[in-house]
Amino acid sequence: MIQSITWLGDKVRFLDQTELPLWEKYVETSDIHLLADAIVKLKVRGAPLIGISAAYGVVLGLLPHKNSPLEIFLEQFHRSVELLEKTRPTAKNLFWALERMRNVVRLNPMNNATLLFDMLETEAKSIHDEDRRMCESMGFYGAQLIDDGMNILTHCNTGALATGGIGTALGAIKTAHQSGKKIHVYADETRPLLQGARLTMWELQKEKIPSTLITDNSAAWTMKQKKVDAIFVGADRVVANGDAANKIGTYNLAILAKEHGIPLYVVIPTSTIDLLLKSGSEIPIEERGAGEVVSLAGKRVAPEDVDVFSPAFDVTPNELISAIITEKGIHRPPYQQSLQAAVTE
Amino acid sequence: MIQSITWLGDKVRFLDQTELPLWEKYVETSDIHLLADAIVKLKVRGAPLIGISAAYGVVLGLLPHKNSPLEIFLEQFHRSVELLEKTRPTAKNLFWALERMRNVVRLNPMNNATLLFDMLETEAKSIHDEDRRMCESMGFYGAQLIDDGMNILTHCNTGALATGGIGTALGAIKTAHQSGKKIHVYADETRPLLQGARLTMWELQKEKIPSTLITDNSAAWTMKQKKVDAIFVGADRVVANGDAANKIGTYNLAILAKEHGIPLYVVIPTSTIDLLLKSGSEIPIEERGAGEVVSLAGKRVAPEDVDVFSPAFDVTPNELISAIITEKGIHRPPYQQSLQAAVTE
Repeated sequence: MIQSITWLGDKVRFLDQTELPLWEKYVETSDIHLLADAIVKLKVRGAPLIGISAAYGVVLGLLPHKNSPLEIFLEQFHRSVELLEKTRPTAKNLFWALERMRNVVRLNPMNNATLLFDMLETEAKSIHDEDRRMCESMGFYGAQLIDDGMNILTHCNTGALATGGIGTALGAIKTAHQSGKKIHVYADETRPLLQGARLTMWELQKEKIPSTLITDNSAAWTMKQKKVDAIFVGADRVVANGDAANKIGTYNLAILAKEHGIPLYVVIPTSTIDLLLKSGSEIPIEERGAGEVVSLAGKRVAPEDVDVFSPAFDVTPNELISAIITEKGIHRPPYQQSLQAAVTE
Repeated sequence: MIQSITWLGDKVRFLDQTELPLWEKYVETSDIHLLADAIVKLKVRGAPLIGISAAYGVVLGLLPHKNSPLEIFLEQFHRSVELLEKTRPTAKNLFWALERMRNVVRLNPMNNATLLFDMLETEAKSIHDEDRRMCESMGFYGAQLIDDGMNILTHCNTGALATGGIGTALGAIKTAHQSGKKIHVYADETRPLLQGARLTMWELQKEKIPSTLITDNSAAWTMKQKKVDAIFVGADRVVANGDAANKIGTYNLAILAKEHGIPLYVVIPTSTIDLLLKSGSEIPIEERGAGEVVSLAGKRVAPEDVDVFSPAFDVTPNELISAIITEKGIHRPPYQQSLQAAVTE
């Protein structure tokens, strides 16, 4: 099984996803700055995995201070959290995981550094373990929406490389495949960073799931010509009304799905849900640099000094989402009610 | 002014577009096989330019035979036409230009080789000249649909690099800009071969037209966030009912445009219209090899042996097209009537 991140007691080992599919390169580090930089550079990516990595990052930041006076330890704790909070703005799971770490400190005000360190390490490992179990559960519910013989379109990477387990949307696809359903997966390459081509196709190949790679702009034609039956995607933040921020291109797919009468399913752990935001317009959308668009494998593919608009995410309005699947079940519109219930349950 | 192809009397000079934007490399050749290969490899591309190139290709193929006996000359003529017909299947202009060359031979059955050669050379130059004038006229009509302050989205390359003149869709944009209208152009990069990033951005920069490059999957988000007012595209074949085959991704854009209430305009010379086909489902759609998708600048971006679906074109149904602009004017639905009138006028 693919292990995108592993806690080794005094360091983490992560798979550098920017090197895939050419190299399966693992990095071991006890340096919080190196891990934070890996999140910024998408060496580790995917909303749930960002959350897990941030939790481990906090522990790494405290490693040199686990026997320090409590005051110094706490100062270092807050500095670590702040550093990690700034890595990527859109994924809810990042803030959710850091909030869980903050709560450990908040709920245990009298503890000494060593005890607190152990509790924080345990919390980080719990976040990781829970994500693994949530993936299994999302897979179980998501697979109920997949029938034998279906053609499924997916976007970006939502598999083991995006989570601590089998994945969210891709986890549902894997679960359906493992249960013996004959399915075919079409994967958008997902420009600019090609997570579909590099990562999803790599996972699909490892799992021996019949699959075909397409360019993002082939999606509508593929839906029509190849008779796509369902679209499965993940999300980086889903807000109270069901609007979902996900990898740029998801909003495209949602509109194309509607035109072709194809359901679009969003598969997320409840840690991706942000009930504090009312609608998608409130979600901060990260913009990436021009370099990811104008250069490919070090070769310029656009003239010098062109202006580039490269949002990392877009927001799919709730009315284009057929159902949201979490580890709690399949949630249907109106999402205001069903998501509230899922989170507070 | 950009000259994508030039007739030099005994050879052609063409700009190798696969080298743009890094190198402005011109190739001079009198070899029909080299020119045919350049069409296959998209060194010269764009429906009108493919037609012009094919006409010159016929002349190149006959150069060594212009003083041959008529029988040998004609045999070589037909061989040349057949070679060029096989280069790319979708663009109507290729077959239209070769048919014009065939008509020269058909209508002058008694001529000797030398005389026929001169007539064919003249016809090829006429096809080129007429295209230049048609571009001016398409620009004139197309620009009438562009208001001051508009944000315009375009796809692939439909400029000087795709034609013998200023372009089709991009020609309309240039004409509006030159008339003093303040416009901003968003260009889809257009995977897999990135004609938008490499070629359209290059032309827009040369013309000093304010412009921004986006990935194809950012189109819907850009329409919404940047308030796109109109979409201008070309086409490789438009059939009797107005269905339009164009660069893969155009069908995507047409659906996204409809959802956002944005008009989509198709700008083409009448030589792109194929009244013999009733609907878009009859248009042969070229599929390209996997290599263009799985390798970027020589670097693999997908695992070995993945399956790839890479159609070069898709078909936009007529009901998603707000107007078709030709050198004859602005044609509105029902296209059955308006296109028939445009062609026979």
